[in-house]
Amino acid sequence: MSTVTLLDYDQAPAASRAVFDEIKAARGVDDVNNFWKALAHDPVTLRRIWDNLQQVMAPGALDPLTKEMLYMAVSIANNCDYCIHSHTAAARAKGMTDEQYGELLAVVGMASQTNALVTGMNVPVDAAFNVEDSD
Amino acid sequence: MSTVTLLDYDQAPAASRAVFDEIKAARGVDDVNNFWKALAHDPVTLRRIWDNLQQVMAPGALDPLTKEMLYMAVSIANNCDYCIHSHTAAARAKGMTDEQYGELLAVVGMASQTNALVTGMNVPVDAAFNVEDSD
Amino acid sequence: MSTVTLLDYDQAPAASRAVFDEIKAARGVDDVNNFWKALAHDPVTLRRIWDNLQQVMAPGALDPLTKEMLYMAVSIANNCDYCIHSHTAAARAKGMTDEQYGELLAVVGMASQTNALVTGMNVPVDAAFNVEDSD
Amino acid sequence: MSTVTLLDYDQAPAASRAVFDEIKAARGVDDVNNFWKALAHDPVTLRRIWDNLQQVMAPGALDPLTKEMLYMAVSIANNCDYCIHSHTAAARAKGMTDEQYGELLAVVGMASQTNALVTGMNVPVDAAFNVEDSD
Amino acid sequence: MSTVTLLDYDQAPAASRAVFDEIKAARGVDDVNNFWKALAHDPVTLRRIWDNLQQVMAPGALDPLTKEMLYMAVSIANNCDYCIHSHTAAARAKGMTDEQYGELLAVVGMASQTNALVTGMNVPVDAAFNVEDSD
Amino acid sequence: MSTVTLLDYDQAPAASRAVFDEIKAARGVDDVNNFWKALAHDPVTLRRIWDNLQQVMAPGALDPLTKEMLYMAVSIANNCDYCIHSHTAAARAKGMTDEQYGELLAVVGMASQTNALVTGMNVPVDAAFNVEDSD
Repeated sequence: MSTVTLLDYDQAPAASRAVFDEIKAARGVDDVNNFWKALAHDPVTLRRIWDNLQQVMAPGALDPLTKEMLYMAVSIANNCDYCIHSHTAAARAKGMTDEQYGELLAVVGMASQTNALVTGMNVPVDAAFNVEDSD
Repeated sequence: MSTVTLLDYDQAPAASRAVFDEIKAARGVDDVNNFWKALAHDPVTLRRIWDNLQQVMAPGALDPLTKEMLYMAVSIANNCDYCIHSHTAAARAKGMTDEQYGELLAVVGMASQTNALVTGMNVPVDAAFNVEDSD
Repeated sequence: MSTVTLLDYDQAPAASRAVFDEIKAARGVDDVNNFWKALAHDPVTLRRIWDNLQQVMAPGALDPLTKEMLYMAVSIANNCDYCIHSHTAAARAKGMTDEQYGELLAVVGMASQTNALVTGMNVPVDAAFNVEDSD
Repeated sequence: MSTVTLLDYDQAPAASRAVFDEIKAARGVDDVNNFWKALAHDPVTLRRIWDNLQQVMAPGALDPLTKEMLYMAVSIANNCDYCIHSHTAAARAKGMTDEQYGELLAVVGMASQTNALVTGMNVPVDAAFNVEDSD
Repeated sequence: MSTVTLLDYDQAPAASRAVFDEIKAARGVDDVNNFWKALAHDPVTLRRIWDNLQQVMAPGALDPLTKEMLYMAVSIANNCDYCIHSHTAAARAKGMTDEQYGELLAVVGMASQTNALVTGMNVPVDAAFNVEDSD
Repeated sequence: MSTVTLLDYDQAPAASRAVFDEIKAARGVDDVNNFWKALAHDPVTLRRIWDNLQQVMAPGALDPLTKEMLYMAVSIANNCDYCIHSHTAAARAKGMTDEQYGELLAVVGMASQTNALVTGMNVPVDAAFNVEDSD
C-alpha cells in the first residue's frame, strides 16, 4: 500500500515522460521500475534523482558491481525493503555470484554487530586513526 | 568518555591476553586497538568476536578491500563513529585511493537519499525483483 | 501480521473504551484507527499516549499542518510504515497540497543524503553553531 | 576527529574554490562551513550537493523555515550531530523562536515514541489510509 | 557542544524548578542531571517527560533493573550516547553486575547482527508467529 | 517477497542439514524457522550464527526470558519485522505475560522518545556518568 499512486507512462506529466524515455534508453528496458513511477508526480525531483544516480553510479575508480554492493549494504542498514530488492537484483544482473552475495551478507551482519558493541561501550577513537596525525 | 575502562595487556584476564596475542600476531602490530581493550572485560565475547571477524573478513569471493568498504558503508549508515574511523583507516591501509573513497561516500549518500524517498512513498516491490519468479 | 490482536470497542477493557470515546469525540469519527485498537490491551499506556499526543499536537507556536509534516519526516527517517501512512493521510486532511508533499519528500531525501556524508567524514561542528558562544 | 582534512580556500582544487565562491555569494558570508571544506576533496560531489541543496531548499510551496525544521527533524532522527547543529542554527537565523523550537523537539520525541510502539506491535495499515482507495 | 544552554536551578523558570524539586526528592540527589537542565527551557515538556518516566519506569510486572537494561538496549540501538551513559550508570546503581552487563552487550550485538541478516534477505514471517493463529 | 529462496531440509546442502538437525534437537521441533531456511544457502554463516546464538542466549547472569526481551527491544529499535515476531513469540513461550509485554513496549517507546530529545539537544554527558571517575 503506497502513499502515492504509481504513474504509468501515459499518466505521467510530459517532463516525467522525458525522464522515463531516458531511463528506458539507458537501461534497454521497455518500462521503468515502480520507484520512477512513484516519483513521476514531481518531475523536478524525478529529473534530479535520475541525473544524480547516473553520475554517482557511473563506472569510475570503483566498478559498477562494487557500487551496487555498497548500495545494497546501505539499503540493508537503512532497512529499505524495496531498495534491497532492486539493488540485489541489479547486483545479480551485474554478475554478483551466490558466494559474493553470501559474503556481503556476512559482512553486513558482522558490521552491525560490532557497531552495536562499540556504540554500547562508546569506545574512544584510537589516535592512530586520526587523519590529521598522518602528516 | 567510555562506559567501560580500557584494559591494557597487563590488566586483562589471561584468556583475553591470549586473544590479544593472536590479534597482534595476525596483524603484525605491537598493541591492539581500543575496541579490543574495551571488550577484554569479557573474554568469551572477545574470543567470539575475534574468531567471527577472522572468518568473515578473510579473502574469499570478495577481496579484503571490498569487504572493508562494505564495512565502512554499514558503519556510516549505523552512525558508529569509532567504526567509521577504524574501517576507513583499514581500507586505506589495504589500498583504498582518494578517488575510491570519494565514490564510496557518494554512493552511501545517494543510497541514503533514495532509501528515504522510497520509504516515504512505500513503493511496492516490482514483480521482476522477486527471486521466486526467476525460475 | 501483528504481534497483538486488534481490540474493537466491544472487546476493549472499560478504561480503554473511555479513551476510544474521547478519540472519537475529538476527531469526529465513528471508529478509532488500528493503532489505538492495538494499544487497547494496556489502558494505562493507551491513556498516556493519547494525552501526550493531544498536548504535543495541539496548535501552538507551530500550526497543526507543520506539526504533521514534522511527524511525517520523523516517521520516514524511522521507517515506520504505518506511521507514514497515518500521518501522510492526516497531513492531507489538514490541507497539505501535492506540491508541499513533493517538497517535503525532497527535503527528507536530501537531509538523509547529507546526514550520511557528514557522518561518513565526521565533520567537526563549526564554532559558529555553538549556542554557548552566542552570549 | 575527522576522517578527512578540512580544506581551506587556498588548499582546495580550483573546481571546489568555484563552488566556495558561489556559496559565499549566495549566503553573504566570508567563509564556508566545515561541511563544504570536507567535501572539497571531491569537486564533483561538492558541486552536485550544492546544486541539489539550492534546488531543494529554495522557497516553494513550503517556506524556507519549514524546510529547515524538516531538515532538523530528519537530522535528529538520523542522529547526525553536525547536521543538527548547522540546521538548528540555520532555522534560528530564519526566525525560529524558542517556542517553535520547543514544539519541534516535542513532536520529534513524540513521533519517535509512537513509531517504536507501532513497530513493536506491527500494526496493520488502516484501509482508510490507502491512497488507492481514495478514488 | 549543545544546541541549548543548560539551565541551573536559579536560571530555570519557576515551573521547571518545581519539577527539579520533585526529581531531587524522588531520587535523593542534590542536583538534577544535564538532560533535565536542557529540557528546563520548556516547562510543559519537562513536566510531561518526568511524569511519563515516573509512570513507565515504576516497578511493575518488570523489575526496575530489567527496565533499565531494556532502556540501555534501545539507547544503544538508537545510538544515543548520553542515554547510554545515563542508563548504564542507573543500571549499575540498581545492581547490574559486570557479568550481566557483558551478557547484555552480547545480546544487543547479536540481535543487531541477525536483524541485519534477516532484513537483507527479507525473510517471510513464519505462520507460527502469527498471534491471530494462536486461537 | 524474499531476496533468496527458502531451502527446506531436502533442498539444503549437507552441511546446512547438519545444523538443521542440531536446531531441531535443541528446540524439540519438527522443522526450523524460515530464518534458518534462508541462511541455508551459506552453510558457513548458518553454522557461525547458530553457534553464536547458542552461546549468547544460554542461561547465564541473565535469565533466558530477560535475554529474549532485550532481543525484542533491539529488534523493535532496528525495525526488523521478522525478528520482532520471532522473539516476541519466543518470549511468550518462555513465560512473558501480557503485563510484562505491555511494560516492555512502554519502556521501548519511552526510551525512543527521550533518545530523540537528548539527540536533538546534544546534551553533554554528566561527569558523574564517567566510569573513569568512579575509582
